[in-house]
Amino acid sequence: MAGSTLGTLLSITTWGESHGKAIGVVLDGCPAGLPLKEEDIQIYLNRRKPGQSRFTTPRKEADAVQILSGVFDGRTTGTPISLMIPNTSQRSKDYRELAECYRPGHADYTYDCKYGFRDYTGGGRSSGRETIGRVAAGAIAAKILSRLQITVTAYTRSIGPVSIDYDRFDLSQMEQNAVNMPDAVSAGLAEAHLDACREQQDSCGGVVECVIQGLPAGIGEPCFDKLNANLAKAICSIGAVKGFEIGDGFEASRSFGSQNNDAFYRTTDGTIAKKTNHAGGVLGGISDGSDLIFRAAFKPTPSISAPQKTVNKSGDDITLSVKGRHDPIIVPRAVVVVECMAALTVLDLLLVSMSSRLDRIENFFTTL
Amino acid sequence: MAGSTLGTLLSITTWGESHGKAIGVVLDGCPAGLPLKEEDIQIYLNRRKPGQSRFTTPRKEADAVQILSGVFDGRTTGTPISLMIPNTSQRSKDYRELAECYRPGHADYTYDCKYGFRDYTGGGRSSGRETIGRVAAGAIAAKILSRLQITVTAYTRSIGPVSIDYDRFDLSQMEQNAVNMPDAVSAGLAEAHLDACREQQDSCGGVVECVIQGLPAGIGEPCFDKLNANLAKAICSIGAVKGFEIGDGFEASRSFGSQNNDAFYRTTDGTIAKKTNHAGGVLGGISDGSDLIFRAAFKPTPSISAPQKTVNKSGDDITLSVKGRHDPIIVPRAVVVVECMAALTVLDLLLVSMSSRLDRIENFFTTL
Amino acid sequence: MAGSTLGTLLSITTWGESHGKAIGVVLDGCPAGLPLKEEDIQIYLNRRKPGQSRFTTPRKEADAVQILSGVFDGRTTGTPISLMIPNTSQRSKDYRELAECYRPGHADYTYDCKYGFRDYTGGGRSSGRETIGRVAAGAIAAKILSRLQITVTAYTRSIGPVSIDYDRFDLSQMEQNAVNMPDAVSAGLAEAHLDACREQQDSCGGVVECVIQGLPAGIGEPCFDKLNANLAKAICSIGAVKGFEIGDGFEASRSFGSQNNDAFYRTTDGTIAKKTNHAGGVLGGISDGSDLIFRAAFKPTPSISAPQKTVNKSGDDITLSVKGRHDPIIVPRAVVVVECMAALTVLDLLLVSMSSRLDRIENFFTTL
Amino acid sequence: MAGSTLGTLLSITTWGESHGKAIGVVLDGCPAGLPLKEEDIQIYLNRRKPGQSRFTTPRKEADAVQILSGVFDGRTTGTPISLMIPNTSQRSKDYRELAECYRPGHADYTYDCKYGFRDYTGGGRSSGRETIGRVAAGAIAAKILSRLQITVTAYTRSIGPVSIDYDRFDLSQMEQNAVNMPDAVSAGLAEAHLDACREQQDSCGGVVECVIQGLPAGIGEPCFDKLNANLAKAICSIGAVKGFEIGDGFEASRSFGSQNNDAFYRTTDGTIAKKTNHAGGVLGGISDGSDLIFRAAFKPTPSISAPQKTVNKSGDDITLSVKGRHDPIIVPRAVVVVECMAALTVLDLLLVSMSSRLDRIENFFTTL
Repeated sequence: MAGSTLGTLLSITTWGESHGKAIGVVLDGCPAGLPLKEEDIQIYLNRRKPGQSRFTTPRKEADAVQILSGVFDGRTTGTPISLMIPNTSQRSKDYRELAECYRPGHADYTYDCKYGFRDYTGGGRSSGRETIGRVAAGAIAAKILSRLQITVTAYTRSIGPVSIDYDRFDLSQMEQNAVNMPDAVSAGLAEAHLDACREQQDSCGGVVECVIQGLPAGIGEPCFDKLNANLAKAICSIGAVKGFEIGDGFEASRSFGSQNNDAFYRTTDGTIAKKTNHAGGVLGGISDGSDLIFRAAFKPTPSISAPQKTVNKSGDDITLSVKGRHDPIIVPRAVVVVECMAALTVLDLLLVSMSSRLDRIENFFTTL
Repeated sequence: MAGSTLGTLLSITTWGESHGKAIGVVLDGCPAGLPLKEEDIQIYLNRRKPGQSRFTTPRKEADAVQILSGVFDGRTTGTPISLMIPNTSQRSKDYRELAECYRPGHADYTYDCKYGFRDYTGGGRSSGRETIGRVAAGAIAAKILSRLQITVTAYTRSIGPVSIDYDRFDLSQMEQNAVNMPDAVSAGLAEAHLDACREQQDSCGGVVECVIQGLPAGIGEPCFDKLNANLAKAICSIGAVKGFEIGDGFEASRSFGSQNNDAFYRTTDGTIAKKTNHAGGVLGGISDGSDLIFRAAFKPTPSISAPQKTVNKSGDDITLSVKGRHDPIIVPRAVVVVECMAALTVLDLLLVSMSSRLDRIENFFTTL
Repeated sequence: MAGSTLGTLLSITTWGESHGKAIGVVLDGCPAGLPLKEEDIQIYLNRRKPGQSRFTTPRKEADAVQILSGVFDGRTTGTPISLMIPNTSQRSKDYRELAECYRPGHADYTYDCKYGFRDYTGGGRSSGRETIGRVAAGAIAAKILSRLQITVTAYTRSIGPVSIDYDRFDLSQMEQNAVNMPDAVSAGLAEAHLDACREQQDSCGGVVECVIQGLPAGIGEPCFDKLNANLAKAICSIGAVKGFEIGDGFEASRSFGSQNNDAFYRTTDGTIAKKTNHAGGVLGGISDGSDLIFRAAFKPTPSISAPQKTVNKSGDDITLSVKGRHDPIIVPRAVVVVECMAALTVLDLLLVSMSSRLDRIENFFTTL
Repeated sequence: MAGSTLGTLLSITTWGESHGKAIGVVLDGCPAGLPLKEEDIQIYLNRRKPGQSRFTTPRKEADAVQILSGVFDGRTTGTPISLMIPNTSQRSKDYRELAECYRPGHADYTYDCKYGFRDYTGGGRSSGRETIGRVAAGAIAAKILSRLQITVTAYTRSIGPVSIDYDRFDLSQMEQNAVNMPDAVSAGLAEAHLDACREQQDSCGGVVECVIQGLPAGIGEPCFDKLNANLAKAICSIGAVKGFEIGDGFEASRSFGSQNNDAFYRTTDGTIAKKTNHAGGVLGGISDGSDLIFRAAFKPTPSISAPQKTVNKSGDDITLSVKGRHDPIIVPRAVVVVECMAALTVLDLLLVSMSSRLDRIENFFTTL
């Protein structure tokens, strides 16, 4: 695969540039029989749409999805689902002056090195708009997971130095604030931090956390396709992500075995569970029946209005002040992207896991 | 691929259990014409061998590699290179009592859930010995990279709370201490921390850092096969890794755009470079010509001698005291594993990148 | 990959149903820098369009391609090229009566078995219109190959019992007749055969032959990705293909080693060549510098107007007379499909072959 | 994947050269819980062993398989199964004189073109011994299929001009003659033809036919991973295969729709079946519940004792008389190779098909 396709049984292939005609995705391997309407997908796309708060670009983009294939009489047919989202708000002249310049923190220079030239309008393929395809496909994966009583929930864990307090954790707060934080107090502090950033013509980073509940034990492959390894790739392939951790993550590197090990016990209904969850729901790369918990670190938005020194294609020193419409923080809109990449990854490995035991395979085909 | 194969053009397929007959790997897609002897590989395997310091298991394992295919007259032929390392030091009776028990922090429970039963001797497939195949193949990738003036160097960055001080950074120190730290003073502190752990019958975690130098700009694919995404998967697929970050990583989430952006400038020889390297050598998923820098967080060794509460297969409460021969810290021996997974990942994407520009392809075939 | 994606470095992902909104393809891994316009692709699509002779369905379909991504300022950017061809001539009511019925020779029954239901309009995903995406992507591959002086040429070799005579072989004749035969006399006989078929409300099969010239020696991988094996898969994945052969093919099974072996000799310019080409241009799965020659056997169009006995979903006996607009022969329009699948396969393996020798890799990166 | 790995969920990676230390294969994705002993595999390997009749090389090779991983307490564990077959009968000096020479019909020249040099002993990687790994892995696939009441049976259909007569078809005859033909009379004629070939120091080709019974309808993916397409690739990747056809194959190209279409009918037990099977068990790339039938055309053994003209590496004309120990016909020993590649391909797609319907997935996870 040439790098724009991801997944073993359930795969996505994304395409499209920020200011091209459209952005899209092909979801292949989606099981047949799922009721699916454009609204199911649109709800997810709306969560990443700009223009929803003072911290996102004021661009107005419809980002309206069209289902082009793979659905018939309201249900998925098992064949590839092609989803297209036309680009409607391109203002390419805003960017024309950037054609010759290498913006710090952006992929302008590396694309030129790799390809010899680039689509410089709106960041081209390296734009955050590339994630639209991921969200559109992920919405379908999330709907299937919900049919299996599996939920994927992401939220903003921190913005700059402001982290949520788990004593105040309240998911219902998430949609009440502009930063998608499940903690009203921290959200207020984060918004103040962001206002200060904007005043400085600056931007800041943050962390998204994601929890997957209801996942049965036994999902994930033991070697390279560990559940956490595939999640790491899926999440780190999101443009601005600079780090990934599962369970206690980097904190585990400062812990002791006696603390970090999660003791098993028998629950009142006779099943086996863990008393703690430092592991984040995965042991040996395979889900253990606990909540799966991971985090993604996002760098600050590289486009800032404050003047920056850099060079142009010819190597001349220039001072750049990125105009255009940019979010001072990527995180709130990235929450749904993380959720969708997680849903796609988990569903793919869940389908793969169906073939791990001969007795279950025999039972499957016997009862057809 | 069923999960034990990794890579697009250069791929590895690993196999083997801790106490089986042997451990091995097939490296496919290795270019023809590389001079290769078993010693080239053995040097790397020796770096992960146990028994080299007081902090590693006193087991003595030869871990001697045999090249079974793909090399003729001392050079690689371009066909699959099969490498086998016989297991010589199995003491399966040490583990027999663990057959029925679910050790905290281990994959015993999840393997049983997934497969219905498991090879319980020495951890079976989930043992750290699985990394032997990765190191054997990675040694070959590293040799090829060195032919292209690319070096991959990993070292211990921290053990528990003890981190290296970059003011004292000295790579030559790495082999002078038992913890593979490039800083003699920190190494001393880390060793003291480890001695304390062992006294408590406990274990601790740590962080490995890896630097890749000489990588040309333009390596990595723009979407899912971003250089950092493929590295994240390769590294997170190593057994005890709980986190991955590139460049400033999680620290970037607490930074500002004005700080985190790396300014481009023209060097004295006319090329373009970056003044800082917060990005860690990758922009938009593609190498930017700077050093590539990433870190991996390792959890504490789950096998500890201190008694732990857990359950057995039937769900009965038991108290477990893991006997056998275990390292109180995984990190020093994992350094070479990280290095090798990085080498394999980078070389694979480097080969893929050869086909990114039509002019270079035309030139390639014209000059055959 | 879930089955709608093909290729290692250059991959295609096709989507779309016969009577859905559109048909499309994503071509990933296309090298950057190729001048590309919609006309380049349209020329190929026009060759498979219906309504061009009395032997193709009188449906009028524009089959006009739109480039949605991956091209900027008239050149490919190296990122995924999304191509969409809107469906404009759906007359779904023609097919409504077929919803409950299992047409002989069609995939109605197998899709129902696999997916539980199906898009019955116009054959849905199993329609010949699925090949539009293949042709659109293949046109781009063919254009790149032509830049490397490699040409891919397919033509009708036989229709029913009428085969071309190589003594009269004249490629320029191909576009002069309704059956794409490079032999005017045979074309006349074939057309008479087809007229008789139509009179009987019947259909017939045929063979497409394809020749690839200019391919350097050394393309193809030695084991499963043999040049002929990948071609076999690509060609046999075309809906109505029932057989594939390379070089002398099935005839070789009746030959002797002394006849079938192609002797090597030194040409006047000092290079090595073969005196004959029974092998069809491939030895050990790798191109040998001779013309690559293969053939594909197409079954008769399964949709015929003559009444046929079959059953409906409930298992009731019915008599079916397929109405609608169908070609009495698939072959003439399939010629360009074969050509395009061959171009995609050969180009993919050609790109892969760039990494087979270390000396060439070193040279590639040294001269960047 | 770099070309030595095949399969989506169940994959094989083969390695090894004819005169290297060993030949082997890694089977990944094999479901857990299958009872497996080395004898299960050895039975299949013995069927391809040389020295069993006067038409196979008199070399004596033990070809004894060793299971190195993936089996514990007599059952498969779900982790990679590594199988190794040591090479014991290398007589490399027989071949030394061939090092400089390009044998007609062999891959000597193409390997040199691709890799710059080659392992010339015994054909190296291009030797027929490469199929040992395929057979070893295929034996396991066949055992799993038999647990699902699916049988894969291959036999010699023709040798040179001598084809079996289906009126005399008797599978039990297959092991009674030296050519694996299920027809005693034809076997006699074929043996006479082979004796004549040998007298002429010549060789001949033939056709293997394979029947798969018990396969449920619904196996195979609709686009590129059609059951017949994946079979075509698997079969055409066997060294000497020059053609593949399914059902009526090339004969279908000379047929009419009214003949070639297989009518559906309701069987006495109420299921739906086909009255004929021109399709060979596959419609739209998906199994239809009928027997799956395909054929593979093998070229004559290229190594013949009769003198042949060719060139050496320097381009000098030479006359070659291939000494050493070679079969005058490949087909009888290839029968089991075809069977094994078919078993691997079918089982892989059967596992993939488990995820095609949401209702079945829901049922699978509900009943865990």
